Amino acid sequence: MTASPTPPAAKLSPADVADALARLREASPLVQSLTNIVVAPWTANVLLAAGAAPAMVDNPHESGIFAQVANGVLVNTGTPYDDTTEAMRTAVEACRAAGTPWVLDPVAAGGLPWRTHLARDLMSAHPATIVRGNASEIAGLLGGAGGRGVDSADTPEAVLDQARALARQHGCVVAVSGPVDHVTDGDALVRVHNGHELMARVTGVGCVLGALMAAYAAVAPPMLAATAATAHLTVAADRAATESRGPGSFAVALLDHLALLAPAELGEAVRLS
Amino acid sequence: MTASPTPPAAKLSPADVADALARLREASPLVQSLTNIVVAPWTANVLLAAGAAPAMVDNPHESGIFAQVANGVLVNTGTPYDDTTEAMRTAVEACRAAGTPWVLDPVAAGGLPWRTHLARDLMSAHPATIVRGNASEIAGLLGGAGGRGVDSADTPEAVLDQARALARQHGCVVAVSGPVDHVTDGDALVRVHNGHELMARVTGVGCVLGALMAAYAAVAPPMLAATAATAHLTVAADRAATESRGPGSFAVALLDHLALLAPAELGEAVRLS
Amino acid sequence: MTASPTPPAAKLSPADVADALARLREASPLVQSLTNIVVAPWTANVLLAAGAAPAMVDNPHESGIFAQVANGVLVNTGTPYDDTTEAMRTAVEACRAAGTPWVLDPVAAGGLPWRTHLARDLMSAHPATIVRGNASEIAGLLGGAGGRGVDSADTPEAVLDQARALARQHGCVVAVSGPVDHVTDGDALVRVHNGHELMARVTGVGCVLGALMAAYAAVAPPMLAATAATAHLTVAADRAATESRGPGSFAVALLDHLALLAPAELGEAVRLS
Repeated sequence: MTASPTPPAAKLSPADVADALARLREASPLVQSLTNIVVAPWTANVLLAAGAAPAMVDNPHESGIFAQVANGVLVNTGTPYDDTTEAMRTAVEACRAAGTPWVLDPVAAGGLPWRTHLARDLMSAHPATIVRGNASEIAGLLGGAGGRGVDSADTPEAVLDQARALARQHGCVVAVSGPVDHVTDGDALVRVHNGHELMARVTGVGCVLGALMAAYAAVAPPMLAATAATAHLTVAADRAATESRGPGSFAVALLDHLALLAPAELGEAVRLS
Repeated sequence: MTASPTPPAAKLSPADVADALARLREASPLVQSLTNIVVAPWTANVLLAAGAAPAMVDNPHESGIFAQVANGVLVNTGTPYDDTTEAMRTAVEACRAAGTPWVLDPVAAGGLPWRTHLARDLMSAHPATIVRGNASEIAGLLGGAGGRGVDSADTPEAVLDQARALARQHGCVVAVSGPVDHVTDGDALVRVHNGHELMARVTGVGCVLGALMAAYAAVAPPMLAATAATAHLTVAADRAATESRGPGSFAVALLDHLALLAPAELGEAVRLS
Repeated sequence: MTASPTPPAAKLSPADVADALARLREASPLVQSLTNIVVAPWTANVLLAAGAAPAMVDNPHESGIFAQVANGVLVNTGTPYDDTTEAMRTAVEACRAAGTPWVLDPVAAGGLPWRTHLARDLMSAHPATIVRGNASEIAGLLGGAGGRGVDSADTPEAVLDQARALARQHGCVVAVSGPVDHVTDGDALVRVHNGHELMARVTGVGCVLGALMAAYAAVAPPMLAATAATAHLTVAADRAATESRGPGSFAVALLDHLALLAPAELGEAVRLS
């Protein structure tokens, strides 16, 4: 519950975002992903394309050991099982002990009680560095009514008060995905205006955003990490969309542009407010 | 064991198929998939491309709750584990209670006793709305000898009597995939003559057909749902194949064409008999 | 611990490799893959593209039965769980009983004790036909210090003595992946000089190499199987890289070229030493 170590949001500039990407490429952080069976391959490929090093260690025998050496950890509740949820608890505990930044993606929180309790337990044990979700998941994690699975009926704007409350409650950064992405530490707010509707036609684009935040959290403070990850993904999506005729070609082009995007190009293309 | 609610097959026309696609796009049904680790990403992407909303809730704590709100449920026995099979049983029970249509894809039924018993148990508890498999799986589910995994040594034509018997036994629709797809409710028969051999060079094209049937079952009666799903996939495959030089480019183009295909185009291109 | 049944490495020629591919296409071997959730779809698609038939049977109720009918078995320790590791033990035992060739891909061996013990247990129960890993995994399996997950800080050249020791200890073939791939039976050595750095930007390219070795082990003796699988993948990668601008387009082109590559073309393009 300490004060956020990030600078005021007004100071987050496109140049900061560009610099974070340069640091990501330089450091190639090792990102441990405890994620779901639907997006595991896509998550690893997005991390590799962006410049990070993925590792999926999601059994309870090894998740804690690995979280101590990883540079960032992602916990995604998309398809939780008894053994992988135990691995999540162990990993989060190890993040606390080792000081490893971690990102929570509370998929379908609010809509399904079992995983909502899991997500809240994890936050109680050791608050995530960043929580990323759509509007209904953020509201659901705080205590509001949930949506239908991973869809989001509400907009980030509609749950901004809840996002701020969640951030203050846990001393973390909360990122709400939507047509305009919102990132807040409970006080400051950054909006990212890039992105394309084709992102909603490929599975796990939100999930991989959480993974990218875990990568950026290894090289930047939380507000910048969440903002830079969002910028990297949505600017690459903007470029991919101009070349795509459907979700298949878009996903392929997105991976290419995640890799091709140079820091200076990112700084020029990102639209913050 | 009631009579099929579908109209006689002779009345299923290309216009019916086109209309079903229009309804799918309008409704964007929520499809819960309890499927295997090999095709889970591909299944979600095919559903999204086609116009449905995928959700993978496959643990026993949540599968029943979710099956009550889903518009359709897919159960695929490709990589069953103790916890996911328990989730399947719970989901099917919830489908019975809530009236949710569900599709069984009995992968490798007949060849492997454990999963064959599982598939039969599920059908005994509450018959699927549609069963989809290749020839050896349909024969194996009924009681014949099985094939080598997901391959099918036999043709749909060769097991048509068994498909009809299975449909009558359970009061369900049975779809047998092959070069010519066969759909029967035990009495009526519809054949779909579209499709391309490249479909057999990409993993899970049969599995995603089952998922599409679960989506269509939310907006159409079972015979039409199975036929329209088959038409949607195979006509998109025909188009994708003309632009592809191998399985990689074919899979990408297939996703694009699943999304691009308009109802009127589908009605013109599908070849039924 | 018997002497290797393979001919001396000096006799392995590009013509042998071409012939192995021709036999693979002719036989279409059934490959059972017990692998991780990150690469399962990619593994199945690579096997299909190359000309083999994939089947993922990785639960303990069925893995042993299936390993008796499969033509080759892959065991990959990327995301091991209690139930899938039990399935691995059962499958390896069945490989011994049935004489089925099997390939061990000891992902992250050395770095994580639990899976390192698993890999060593499997080798003790019945040595793999081929062990495939990067330099740190091979060193880690033998007993050296491990690396950070699936990355490899060392080169194949640096661990060649350990690779030879491992091969002699178990009477198996050891393949060490890297910029130049090394294959040894403890005595003979074959190097494959093809491949492109984009292979490291797509998840699971190493993992699918292990799967291809399991396919080739069904149609060729171990030294040739490991060499031909490496040649097939790396020559296809060379071709794919010339057409790609990033990891997305590269992965798609790789699948196409795995399918398109003719035996004579492979023989002409492979560079052995």
